[in-house]
Amino acid sequence: MSIGIFDSGIGGLTVFKAILKDFPDADIFYLGDTARVPYGNKSKETIIRYSLECATFLKKNFDINLLIVACNTASSYAVETLKNYLNIPVIDVINPGVEYALQVSKTKKIGVIGTQATIRSGSYQKLLQKNGAKVYSKPCPLFVPLVEEGRIKGQITRLIIKDYLQEIIDEGIDTLILGCTHYPLLKEEILNLYPYLNIVDSTNTINNYIKKFSVSLQNNSNQKIFITDEAPSFYTLKNLLLPEIPLEKVELSQICTL
Amino acid sequence: MSIGIFDSGIGGLTVFKAILKDFPDADIFYLGDTARVPYGNKSKETIIRYSLECATFLKKNFDINLLIVACNTASSYAVETLKNYLNIPVIDVINPGVEYALQVSKTKKIGVIGTQATIRSGSYQKLLQKNGAKVYSKPCPLFVPLVEEGRIKGQITRLIIKDYLQEIIDEGIDTLILGCTHYPLLKEEILNLYPYLNIVDSTNTINNYIKKFSVSLQNNSNQKIFITDEAPSFYTLKNLLLPEIPLEKVELSQICTL
Repeated sequence: MSIGIFDSGIGGLTVFKAILKDFPDADIFYLGDTARVPYGNKSKETIIRYSLECATFLKKNFDINLLIVACNTASSYAVETLKNYLNIPVIDVINPGVEYALQVSKTKKIGVIGTQATIRSGSYQKLLQKNGAKVYSKPCPLFVPLVEEGRIKGQITRLIIKDYLQEIIDEGIDTLILGCTHYPLLKEEILNLYPYLNIVDSTNTINNYIKKFSVSLQNNSNQKIFITDEAPSFYTLKNLLLPEIPLEKVELSQICTL
Repeated sequence: MSIGIFDSGIGGLTVFKAILKDFPDADIFYLGDTARVPYGNKSKETIIRYSLECATFLKKNFDINLLIVACNTASSYAVETLKNYLNIPVIDVINPGVEYALQVSKTKKIGVIGTQATIRSGSYQKLLQKNGAKVYSKPCPLFVPLVEEGRIKGQITRLIIKDYLQEIIDEGIDTLILGCTHYPLLKEEILNLYPYLNIVDSTNTINNYIKKFSVSLQNNSNQKIFITDEAPSFYTLKNLLLPEIPLEKVELSQICTL
């Protein structure tokens, strides 16, 4: 069994890296749709369509039999459609984050931040509420461009963090779910402002989900990253996180097949 | 003759609105590629491809015979290719801004701000230098998300403006070109910080360029806006700028034809 991972761009490499910790030799193929990033400002219909196209590329070319949706926006909208369409197990990044947040929160007052589309979907809120938590959510659309510009520290970044978070902090949350793969890079400054917070992201427990299928994993270390556009900003994060994994550009016409 | 306008998204509506001032009854068709916005973080190759696809849609469907590239990033990379491919006049948003900046600047020390891709292209810098100006440029990648979130005023916005602009201000510029269609919405706060600056954007003189072709303009008031994705954020700016122009969504499959 080989694993396919897709994301709207480069943020999902944090998920790829987390998976490698427990499955260093697994066959893993990653597609970052850098030609159409971000998904978080798109409509539900377009998010589902792009997700299906990315997953279809991975299935057709690498016969993946486990799909990780390493993008919270796609996880919020496209997972059911992907399951029905692909007929293979699909792991999203919403459930692992929620599970871990419920483990570590004492007050069960849990904050969730993400893109406009992720928060609008209510995916985190519904799952947390079903499990008895009180949820305080907030879209943080400036966080992705801040991270992509490399502004992960400093006065402006702290001010923006405070501007978004203070109102949900004031509600008494003890745990904050980072509902976007870019946000872990802001964790240090968030903790500088709110040192008592439990900060949870989707990489905390994703490997537990993969372990259910791990008996049939292929371990030939076939690992590759594909991107749909060679944007200059991509390489900074790629080389920071996974410098050793080979990279290839695919034409968008190979992806736009639906 | 009917006019086609395309932009990566909604910012180009400021250009559409400026054109309507002088040509209220002209036949004008606008395409905003909201399903793939922004272009400013994409590669040159992808920017050219997307631009050709947008222009082809307008040409095929409305037989436009004048194309306005209302996106500075596309103007910086794709204009020559568009001219060769379409065989109709193509007006970009770089030349009008530069022309006006050269008229109003006394010191001929001119600042230019834009997306990463626009500034990287050197399009403004080359044109200004050819005309004897000293140029100080700076990419401002947070400005588009600030505007799209509606943060056009306030402490955070002023701090970010200062963070980007202070170094080129210190060089002694007297004129600043806003090299991105979103940036005019930040003009007020830029002037609050630097009240003596001449602020120039592409809408200042674009109508002079159109006037060269205006004898053959069709004036049946056929005007329509097309978008490739109905993202919720689109409507705010559309209704603010051009509430009366009808709107239609087109499928991306009608655009991705190359």
